[in-house]
Amino acid sequence: MINYEAFFKVTYGLYIVSSGNKDRGNGYISNTVFQVTSEPPRFAACCNKNNFTAEFIQRSQAFSVSILDQNASSEVIGKFGYKSGNDIDKMVGSQVKYGETGVPIVLDDCISFFECKVVQTVDVGTHLMFIGEVVNTEVINDTKDALTYLYYRQVKKGLSPKNAPTYIDKSKLEIKTENQLDKKYKCPACGFIYDDAVENVKFIDLPDDWVCPACGTEKSDFIEL
Amino acid sequence: MINYEAFFKVTYGLYIVSSGNKDRGNGYISNTVFQVTSEPPRFAACCNKNNFTAEFIQRSQAFSVSILDQNASSEVIGKFGYKSGNDIDKMVGSQVKYGETGVPIVLDDCISFFECKVVQTVDVGTHLMFIGEVVNTEVINDTKDALTYLYYRQVKKGLSPKNAPTYIDKSKLEIKTENQLDKKYKCPACGFIYDDAVENVKFIDLPDDWVCPACGTEKSDFIEL
Repeated sequence: MINYEAFFKVTYGLYIVSSGNKDRGNGYISNTVFQVTSEPPRFAACCNKNNFTAEFIQRSQAFSVSILDQNASSEVIGKFGYKSGNDIDKMVGSQVKYGETGVPIVLDDCISFFECKVVQTVDVGTHLMFIGEVVNTEVINDTKDALTYLYYRQVKKGLSPKNAPTYIDKSKLEIKTENQLDKKYKCPACGFIYDDAVENVKFIDLPDDWVCPACGTEKSDFIEL
Repeated sequence: MINYEAFFKVTYGLYIVSSGNKDRGNGYISNTVFQVTSEPPRFAACCNKNNFTAEFIQRSQAFSVSILDQNASSEVIGKFGYKSGNDIDKMVGSQVKYGETGVPIVLDDCISFFECKVVQTVDVGTHLMFIGEVVNTEVINDTKDALTYLYYRQVKKGLSPKNAPTYIDKSKLEIKTENQLDKKYKCPACGFIYDDAVENVKFIDLPDDWVCPACGTEKSDFIEL
């Protein structure tokens, strides 16, 4: 039997994984970045096949990983985690430097980064796992803690977007509020839609200090559709 | 340029990955366990090729992952992280249940576990990455936090053993105590050797409340060799 609550006990950080070049790049928020060997240092990053960045990594055979600060702003998380590079150029307005491999490295709310050359691409089903050899790293801020997924969920009240390997359909979790109908709510500032039907928690049950994950607008400003 | 300090910003949990069967099993402490897809739920676990458990996973094509409690005892971490199944049967004296696939699941200091059937094995160099489909999970204790690698390093003063993907040779880190000669110290209780030459911190610089990672013996009891 599978109790999906067990998955919430696994520890992850939160990262911006970017690829592309100076003309056009893209990045997404990932929680599945991890070292796979120490000699030589190689990291793996899992990327949904539907993710706009997947194409960039396949083309440039390189990617960068920016490790987010615990106090990363909801603007940065919203832009890289909830918007698609199909719709906007995420590098515009971001603090970006270009690495040895030519890929963009996002520096907004970043405490350290590393840049990898892809040495192996593994098809794991819905996702591609890019395994990259580290060619360049830098510590940007040694005094700040890294944002963890637990902190993001518990303190920042964040949720996994649909393309994440750790996304859990709420129908698989215990239903605590059976007597409510699913509704949709729209952020008046950025248009983000909170859909009860696809989230683990109904909008009405979110805490009062919850804010739009895409732009930081307060819960009380959301409009019921 | 590679600054190895940047790697310490990556977030990991700590897990016991086990395999084998009722007759003979083995487990090791891993920090690189992560979900790679959500539909179906699949997890990857990195295992050094020299690791005794690698053979068990290859033979039984299944493994279990026990998520450790933040207050996991140094006995459990020592047994599974610093001893080899070549020398002892780690399942003897451990609280173990056997899963649907027949693999042992270690329950000591475990807050939840999952059991996976291997669907893919990827050779990533020094390590094998086993990708497994989740067949069974259980939450053992929902009130306790998971042990993170950061907590293990900062609060429990633990270090990465040599077979870990995140092991960093201290020669790659900034040397802070150049004027000391490397020495070796032995734990009088279990024989664990602390060798300045392979650790990131010299024994003399460890805090007074540091204990033997293998058995919990106090620093002051260690014998200089």
